[in-house]
Amino acid sequence: MKLWDKGFSTDKKIDIFTVGNDRDLDLIIAKYDIIGNKAHAEMLAKIGLLTSVENNALQTELDNIMLSIKDGTFTIEDSFEDVHSKVEHLLTEKLGDTGKKIHSARSRNDQVLVDMHLYLRDELAEIKALTKAFFDLLISLSEKYKEVLLPGYTHLQVAMPSSFGMWFSAYAESLIDDIYFLNAAEKVTNQNPLGSAAGYGSSFPIDRTMTTELMGFETLKYNSVAAQMGRGKLEKSVSFAMSSLSATLSKMSMDICLYMSQNFNFVSFPDELTTGSSIMPHKKNPDVFELIRGKCNKLQALPYELTLISNNLPSGYHRDLQLLKEGIVPAIQTLKSCLEMITFSMEQIQVNDDILSNDKYLYLFSVEEVNKLVQNGTPFRDAYKIVGKNIGDGNFNPEKKVNHTHEGSIGNLCLNEIVAKMESALKS
Amino acid sequence: MKLWDKGFSTDKKIDIFTVGNDRDLDLIIAKYDIIGNKAHAEMLAKIGLLTSVENNALQTELDNIMLSIKDGTFTIEDSFEDVHSKVEHLLTEKLGDTGKKIHSARSRNDQVLVDMHLYLRDELAEIKALTKAFFDLLISLSEKYKEVLLPGYTHLQVAMPSSFGMWFSAYAESLIDDIYFLNAAEKVTNQNPLGSAAGYGSSFPIDRTMTTELMGFETLKYNSVAAQMGRGKLEKSVSFAMSSLSATLSKMSMDICLYMSQNFNFVSFPDELTTGSSIMPHKKNPDVFELIRGKCNKLQALPYELTLISNNLPSGYHRDLQLLKEGIVPAIQTLKSCLEMITFSMEQIQVNDDILSNDKYLYLFSVEEVNKLVQNGTPFRDAYKIVGKNIGDGNFNPEKKVNHTHEGSIGNLCLNEIVAKMESALKS
Amino acid sequence: MKLWDKGFSTDKKIDIFTVGNDRDLDLIIAKYDIIGNKAHAEMLAKIGLLTSVENNALQTELDNIMLSIKDGTFTIEDSFEDVHSKVEHLLTEKLGDTGKKIHSARSRNDQVLVDMHLYLRDELAEIKALTKAFFDLLISLSEKYKEVLLPGYTHLQVAMPSSFGMWFSAYAESLIDDIYFLNAAEKVTNQNPLGSAAGYGSSFPIDRTMTTELMGFETLKYNSVAAQMGRGKLEKSVSFAMSSLSATLSKMSMDICLYMSQNFNFVSFPDELTTGSSIMPHKKNPDVFELIRGKCNKLQALPYELTLISNNLPSGYHRDLQLLKEGIVPAIQTLKSCLEMITFSMEQIQVNDDILSNDKYLYLFSVEEVNKLVQNGTPFRDAYKIVGKNIGDGNFNPEKKVNHTHEGSIGNLCLNEIVAKMESALKS
Amino acid sequence: MKLWDKGFSTDKKIDIFTVGNDRDLDLIIAKYDIIGNKAHAEMLAKIGLLTSVENNALQTELDNIMLSIKDGTFTIEDSFEDVHSKVEHLLTEKLGDTGKKIHSARSRNDQVLVDMHLYLRDELAEIKALTKAFFDLLISLSEKYKEVLLPGYTHLQVAMPSSFGMWFSAYAESLIDDIYFLNAAEKVTNQNPLGSAAGYGSSFPIDRTMTTELMGFETLKYNSVAAQMGRGKLEKSVSFAMSSLSATLSKMSMDICLYMSQNFNFVSFPDELTTGSSIMPHKKNPDVFELIRGKCNKLQALPYELTLISNNLPSGYHRDLQLLKEGIVPAIQTLKSCLEMITFSMEQIQVNDDILSNDKYLYLFSVEEVNKLVQNGTPFRDAYKIVGKNIGDGNFNPEKKVNHTHEGSIGNLCLNEIVAKMESALKS
Repeated sequence: MKLWDKGFSTDKKIDIFTVGNDRDLDLIIAKYDIIGNKAHAEMLAKIGLLTSVENNALQTELDNIMLSIKDGTFTIEDSFEDVHSKVEHLLTEKLGDTGKKIHSARSRNDQVLVDMHLYLRDELAEIKALTKAFFDLLISLSEKYKEVLLPGYTHLQVAMPSSFGMWFSAYAESLIDDIYFLNAAEKVTNQNPLGSAAGYGSSFPIDRTMTTELMGFETLKYNSVAAQMGRGKLEKSVSFAMSSLSATLSKMSMDICLYMSQNFNFVSFPDELTTGSSIMPHKKNPDVFELIRGKCNKLQALPYELTLISNNLPSGYHRDLQLLKEGIVPAIQTLKSCLEMITFSMEQIQVNDDILSNDKYLYLFSVEEVNKLVQNGTPFRDAYKIVGKNIGDGNFNPEKKVNHTHEGSIGNLCLNEIVAKMESALKS
Repeated sequence: MKLWDKGFSTDKKIDIFTVGNDRDLDLIIAKYDIIGNKAHAEMLAKIGLLTSVENNALQTELDNIMLSIKDGTFTIEDSFEDVHSKVEHLLTEKLGDTGKKIHSARSRNDQVLVDMHLYLRDELAEIKALTKAFFDLLISLSEKYKEVLLPGYTHLQVAMPSSFGMWFSAYAESLIDDIYFLNAAEKVTNQNPLGSAAGYGSSFPIDRTMTTELMGFETLKYNSVAAQMGRGKLEKSVSFAMSSLSATLSKMSMDICLYMSQNFNFVSFPDELTTGSSIMPHKKNPDVFELIRGKCNKLQALPYELTLISNNLPSGYHRDLQLLKEGIVPAIQTLKSCLEMITFSMEQIQVNDDILSNDKYLYLFSVEEVNKLVQNGTPFRDAYKIVGKNIGDGNFNPEKKVNHTHEGSIGNLCLNEIVAKMESALKS
Repeated sequence: MKLWDKGFSTDKKIDIFTVGNDRDLDLIIAKYDIIGNKAHAEMLAKIGLLTSVENNALQTELDNIMLSIKDGTFTIEDSFEDVHSKVEHLLTEKLGDTGKKIHSARSRNDQVLVDMHLYLRDELAEIKALTKAFFDLLISLSEKYKEVLLPGYTHLQVAMPSSFGMWFSAYAESLIDDIYFLNAAEKVTNQNPLGSAAGYGSSFPIDRTMTTELMGFETLKYNSVAAQMGRGKLEKSVSFAMSSLSATLSKMSMDICLYMSQNFNFVSFPDELTTGSSIMPHKKNPDVFELIRGKCNKLQALPYELTLISNNLPSGYHRDLQLLKEGIVPAIQTLKSCLEMITFSMEQIQVNDDILSNDKYLYLFSVEEVNKLVQNGTPFRDAYKIVGKNIGDGNFNPEKKVNHTHEGSIGNLCLNEIVAKMESALKS
Repeated sequence: MKLWDKGFSTDKKIDIFTVGNDRDLDLIIAKYDIIGNKAHAEMLAKIGLLTSVENNALQTELDNIMLSIKDGTFTIEDSFEDVHSKVEHLLTEKLGDTGKKIHSARSRNDQVLVDMHLYLRDELAEIKALTKAFFDLLISLSEKYKEVLLPGYTHLQVAMPSSFGMWFSAYAESLIDDIYFLNAAEKVTNQNPLGSAAGYGSSFPIDRTMTTELMGFETLKYNSVAAQMGRGKLEKSVSFAMSSLSATLSKMSMDICLYMSQNFNFVSFPDELTTGSSIMPHKKNPDVFELIRGKCNKLQALPYELTLISNNLPSGYHRDLQLLKEGIVPAIQTLKSCLEMITFSMEQIQVNDDILSNDKYLYLFSVEEVNKLVQNGTPFRDAYKIVGKNIGDGNFNPEKKVNHTHEGSIGNLCLNEIVAKMESALKS
């Protein structure tokens, strides 16, 4: 968009610059604007600023708009700045002055706030559900492949025996930590900001407890200035939780890209999930996982973007805050699609069940052998020397079996306990 | 440090490069290493890898080391790589082979992990306590100054009446959102990683449930790989919560720096909290608040630093993870000192109780006047015109009183409800 | 986009996930793809992989496509993955096998690389031109208002006399530092990567020096692996320079938002550049400058986003790199629109030429008075005491004139020298 | 540091909080403070604010202090806030009032600025020299190993033949792009800010052109406000360049960590550069390279830290800016030690010259074989089918030789051209 080259009028240029892509983003949150409008109208009726006839007319019309949003016919034309002005227009078109009265005792600022609180609360619930579905898959894969051994690496060096059971459920358990942050973000969203007006409340005798109940919020963001300061803080809170979850998905994708390399050859996927070349039959490019990794890494920059927009602004509304939406809304869509895609793809993972037969993994068992001798009574130093000598002499023929029994070891994955911990996290 | 200029031997150069400032940082976490050692020894005794005589000797010696840590005589000389090797040395010096046995069934990696889990759990508790103390102060200041009016700004333009009561409690309520994230971080820390060894568990029949109880952890980080992957995730989790809290402190400090300017003159502080010049008697530089702002802004870069260190590393230990400690540990000290300093300083705040007499704030009341007419039955558009005309004619003489009554407005700050929300947040 | 809810086929879901918004972005860089194609075809003809008849046909067809790009009729339908496949399709449709031959001795990867090098080189030139235009305006405003005094602040406290001349040209001179980084980024872009193929070169006897000349690159990125590693490094380089420039624009916008507040009232703008309210005639919201500030702050997160996408990936192409484009391309459009908008707006700035008559700025001159006495022979300490006493006694009546003469002071702005430095920066 | 627990007095607490670790950092920049002092005194003598006797005395004493800095005996005790007050103290102790006079016509703020400009200019020169030394090593390694083949990867999948010659010189050529940014940063540092005083100049008739020449700056930062705004911008500029270079070192370290894994086994290093275990003779942990990678990744967070500290502050000095130093100074030491360590280590690299004999790399040559047929006249599609069939039938026995001839390919590394480009970059 070269503003100054295209014969736009000054007004048009300024309009393009200031409105940005708000109209597109607002289509996504339009549904929540209706919910907020309905609650506000009910409350205005209760305190006498609307008659019950006016309120009924508004409720009916708002329900109609909601239907148009759900069936995809709702639009925000260029002549409207955002969803709020479009809805007000629709109401006024149908109901005349009644349509205007709904704007009593509130401001654009708290409309945006209430929409974002409702929107983000819903999206967090959806993200948690998708995370739980992925968790369940990982637990079932862990159970299925609990006997298949895998080299464990430290410093990217072959180090200790691990297993696919261990690997799958490691990521499952890591997801629980992400749930703690999604829960924290949900607590932040689950507070009603409606009524804070331009950030300092108003002289109208509104009933914020009533709108809190109507919209199903757990509590109020009481202080009007605190509610206004929620812009930025709210989005950052959600982005911290998204960042935490993204890091887990990214790390697992990194493992998979590595494990699909011919140099590892630990896992593979059906052709529709990889790209390749008929001339290079060996090549199975893990594009899906590279994109999950890349997208989830990009998502981890979101908190920094939101911080830069909102940081060092004194209290009170600033227009800068409008820019938060264009960061957080597409990021949420991206995170959800990554969760869907990793779940869809991992359902089709094929594991190599004969990895450890390769001689390069022989020394995985050296520590095991020492420990065995120690547990049979040989002093550690002697055990160490014996095994070292066998290796040096080329006589190292370990059993390639492991007998790990402690909680969280290969032989005792504690999947039930991990599932219980996840259930508890989701409940709190 | 110019490694190559100082006649260091190759070994020394590599040592300086690889050890870094671990020794200094380890003095801070030494206490937690002893707690971890004691629990591990008890458990080894229970499963028969230590005799009870050996265990008793170890417990006594570990208690002695703990005393030396508490009285400040514990040191980590250059001949030791870290706290773990120093403690092992002290134990072996006193107890011979018994001192070495304590290292059975664990690795350096899970020692670091358990120390960091314990350390961060304690620090989070302390940060929460300091936050609560600051919250309490803000609530009492809000109550004390609830009648003193303050201009409310939007776009940095004079907009609506606010009050000191509103301003103080806005930050108090914002701190509750930070508590949610501190709670989430606490859940992440409150899981016992001990026993994960080098990240893949071991063949020793250790009892991790027992060490979990001994160290007072809420649960286990079961999966050994998940526990190892906690390095990085753990520190990032804490840093997200710190970042959230830092932003609140930074924003309040920005307000104060602005409000202390001669162009606002809303608040002031005693001389010992400001710097100035006898030749410029008007000048009261808010150095303390500028430094709180600056330090808290710097703290918000911590998650990105920790992310960059740990991101895109495949699963399994990497030496890079050693660098996490030198970021998180000093940052925690900084955040605590900012909390202490802002609480100490805010106790001494002096508010200007005659701000609104200045004519530039007259128009604050224009919306109020319109709303008053509306509530007395004048249609909005007419009310708007009447007030607009008065302003235009120079006849605008508002009452400079506000009568706001709704939840979270100037006249109804809901401090009890905010306190109750904080109590509930701290309990969960 | 809820991939799994909409009845998409598996293939379609994967396509949506992997292609992303490449098609939209590619419309912006399509022009450069044609330039790259034309140079490649010429070279293939020279080394005998195309006949001159084939080359001529390709050149004609590519020119036709370029026309369609310029007149806006070029499109990339959903059936094409990107601009490269669309162009190949158009050529093949018209020219049959000849259209396919142009893909000899190159890969998708180096096509993207060459497009991005060409695109970014052009955009940097445009950004530099816009920066120069803004610089010129600031210099002329500085000259125009060089006599109008302004309070200079330290710690946001009234400190020393400054002037609008000083303030405007401060930002002008700061822009020169940004040019140094734009120049560095330009050097990085101005290297021909074409011929690196998939990142390891090829066995075709291509003439990369020839394509370098045809596309007007200053030099080659010789090493094929280095050329491939340019993905990520290239975009980050440009983003560092953009970040530097953005910080300058953001800071000036912060000043303006502050200076427009009723508490300062230093500058104002015509109504079309502000928003307000007829009921609050005092209110002139600086939306344009708030949005410049916010957008330029957001831009400063770009290097971090690009770093996270590309960091810790081993050498060689990864699909993650596709995501770089969707960050850098819109960011460049944003930065250009901010430059245009700040220049357009600043042309209309109105400065308050009577700021210092307000008594709160009286003490601005205390240091001046001391220095005057010192320069007239009074020892510093005595001068200090005399002025201090006058202030204390209420007898401080400074002249409110300043006589600063040194290079870069209010009385000697050195605008010619600053202009010369800018010219020199632009030439190098 | 628990400020409130240790019985510190209020003053002491505030002192600890506000001074921070400035004293330690200032030891590193003390040398530059003397250079700035000497130039300032010479200039004061020239304009008559010091007699030549006074100037001579000051020069002598400053030379003495410089000697104490160079021999390591210079200290900054807790009773001094920073290097500036310590130097002033030393001068006054020896020279009485003459020692005080040197502070005429300047402020602490421009002393810090001039010290940082001088310090960073020197460090950039040193970083460039270290980078050039590493570049030279890479070029010589490239020449030495130009015949040794290496698999080239895309998507971490075996893709095309590469070589050690290609790999070493790829990083060499990448370093040239980093030099462009180091040059840009050098231009920013190479401007004299001395004389800007507290950021608004002064009424003293100082000669800034003279101090510019005395300190060897290329030009002045003319505008006093621009000079003051350099705090933050200066440090960020240097950090962008450091970030660019760090990314190159980090990426090469990532390659090495991967290539040292048993799953690749491409390179190795002598024992003193790795850690391992006698019981796991296969294990050679690449600690040095992991730490270079980690440190260089951490360094890439520096620009964000500096940005967060300085962003959205209006023009004029703020105390927050003091915190910049504690980020940039240690970071520079770290980057230099990484450059030294990677150069030292890479000198000892051992390359595996028999990698491609392993069958998993056979298909590296499939594209080569197709291209050969094409160049011998077989149409591409037929060539593709022939090779595909051979592979399918198990009859694929490629020559494992490559004949690449174009600029920047395995057979034509253009090392001389790359060296010439580096020389040219270093000169500009």
